[in-house]
Amino acid sequence: MKVSSLKNDIKLIEDALYFYLNNDNKLIKKLFDSMRYSVDAGGKRIRPRLVLEFSRLCGGDDLTALPFACALEYIHTYSLIHDDLPCMDDDDMRRGKPSNHIVYAEDTALLAGDALQSLAFEIMSAPETVKNAGAYKSVRCINTLANFCGAKGMVGGQVIDLENEKKSAKYKEVLECDDLKTGGLIKAACVMGAILGGADDSQVKMAETYGKCIGISFQIMDDILDITSTNEELGKPVGSDLENNKTTYVSLFGIEKCRQMVNELTDEAIKALDCFSADKSALKELALSLANRKK
Amino acid sequence: MKVSSLKNDIKLIEDALYFYLNNDNKLIKKLFDSMRYSVDAGGKRIRPRLVLEFSRLCGGDDLTALPFACALEYIHTYSLIHDDLPCMDDDDMRRGKPSNHIVYAEDTALLAGDALQSLAFEIMSAPETVKNAGAYKSVRCINTLANFCGAKGMVGGQVIDLENEKKSAKYKEVLECDDLKTGGLIKAACVMGAILGGADDSQVKMAETYGKCIGISFQIMDDILDITSTNEELGKPVGSDLENNKTTYVSLFGIEKCRQMVNELTDEAIKALDCFSADKSALKELALSLANRKK
Repeated sequence: MKVSSLKNDIKLIEDALYFYLNNDNKLIKKLFDSMRYSVDAGGKRIRPRLVLEFSRLCGGDDLTALPFACALEYIHTYSLIHDDLPCMDDDDMRRGKPSNHIVYAEDTALLAGDALQSLAFEIMSAPETVKNAGAYKSVRCINTLANFCGAKGMVGGQVIDLENEKKSAKYKEVLECDDLKTGGLIKAACVMGAILGGADDSQVKMAETYGKCIGISFQIMDDILDITSTNEELGKPVGSDLENNKTTYVSLFGIEKCRQMVNELTDEAIKALDCFSADKSALKELALSLANRKK
Repeated sequence: MKVSSLKNDIKLIEDALYFYLNNDNKLIKKLFDSMRYSVDAGGKRIRPRLVLEFSRLCGGDDLTALPFACALEYIHTYSLIHDDLPCMDDDDMRRGKPSNHIVYAEDTALLAGDALQSLAFEIMSAPETVKNAGAYKSVRCINTLANFCGAKGMVGGQVIDLENEKKSAKYKEVLECDDLKTGGLIKAACVMGAILGGADDSQVKMAETYGKCIGISFQIMDDILDITSTNEELGKPVGSDLENNKTTYVSLFGIEKCRQMVNELTDEAIKALDCFSADKSALKELALSLANRKK
């Protein structure tokens, strides 16, 4: 993917993200400010990009896929706001900015997260969205996202993560945690894009396999980067997981084996694209760029 | 409505509420225990009953309406769990039992609320649900609930409530808060039931009017009961709103005027049912029972 088209995609996504956050009721201005603050915090917009790319791969159009792409990003954003709260990870900073609850207080941050989750489902079911995608595809995507973000998906993964922090977790538990917590939304993005583009059932399955592989690979890379990158401000390894002795892929297998796992998973992700006949270069590059990222 | 059929309805609703909370993954058992704990806390199940009654009034069947009825109750339950958290109302007790976060700790309570919201959208979009209701009605109900529970609905009302607590709120602000916070889900229940039963647009509008009237009336009754009922354990008025000098309908208008408002709103709710030709007695009785409740 060319840098220019990546920039275009991010602009497309961010314009839509802000569009759905319009509000002219002054009584709830603070809530929307708080929601916008965290949506505005940038990031790679991987999940919405995956929706767009899988939709394109299967012949779908961007206009139809955009509200679903935004829904993914809103769910991701709500999970970060709630994750940072004092009763969870108690993080004062997120992506170089003060966390939502530091700026807007805990009560508003909690509610902003809650409202972002509702907004995700609202825009996927909006009349305009349904007119483009059709009621059947809309409802399938809603079900996919609800499944992957709920108790048996992302939120379940967060609960397992909380438990894993308290003990010496086994590989299976770490893997299950990440497949749900990080992998949940990434798989949802791939599956939803494929559904919207009109993929058949076996292709939807392979879209999920791609998502599963890059989701786990992403998390292993996070563990590697936690060890190898240094926090410029503090001059020490970032590794918060390291500090609290949490089991990570690196603590289980060492860095070299982890790099090999990332490469194998990336290969498997790319291989899952074989069943699609259209140009797969954007999704290949996305998988490779995640495997080779430096932060 | 006969007592026996009310009991049957509550059993029907509660059986379905527990059915959707099945889980056999031990790693996330605690999360489901926490979700079930708050769903189990009883209450009058007004919102799911409204879905069923409006669906019946319009010729719908219970099997089709049940997942949507449960969705309302899950959203209501999540809002109570989050409302009780220390960063919100900081309530240790709810319906005579320790609050969710007292039993399961704040992190799990937060996540149980998040997961209950996802579950609501998951069951409304589940293949079995869509098979019964059809994709178009399902997606319309999803959009209705998402709208009424999100930033411009229930959550928005909670934000206005937080602001109102800090100042001497005006009637308009109290009314807007309650119409969103309490009224949001009640209106959603009526509208969703009507949609599922096959009501036309003007009937859906009147279902919303019914919901709006009993929603505000419910809140005014709450304020009246806060003053008039006594907490048996402590031997003093319950009125927590009274203690923190929050503006209430009673503080604005006095008890007698408030009783009159409740009666007028109840009449208006019942009048809104005129456009439906089927037997309206259950919904008339429901409106009257809320206006005449003692707690």
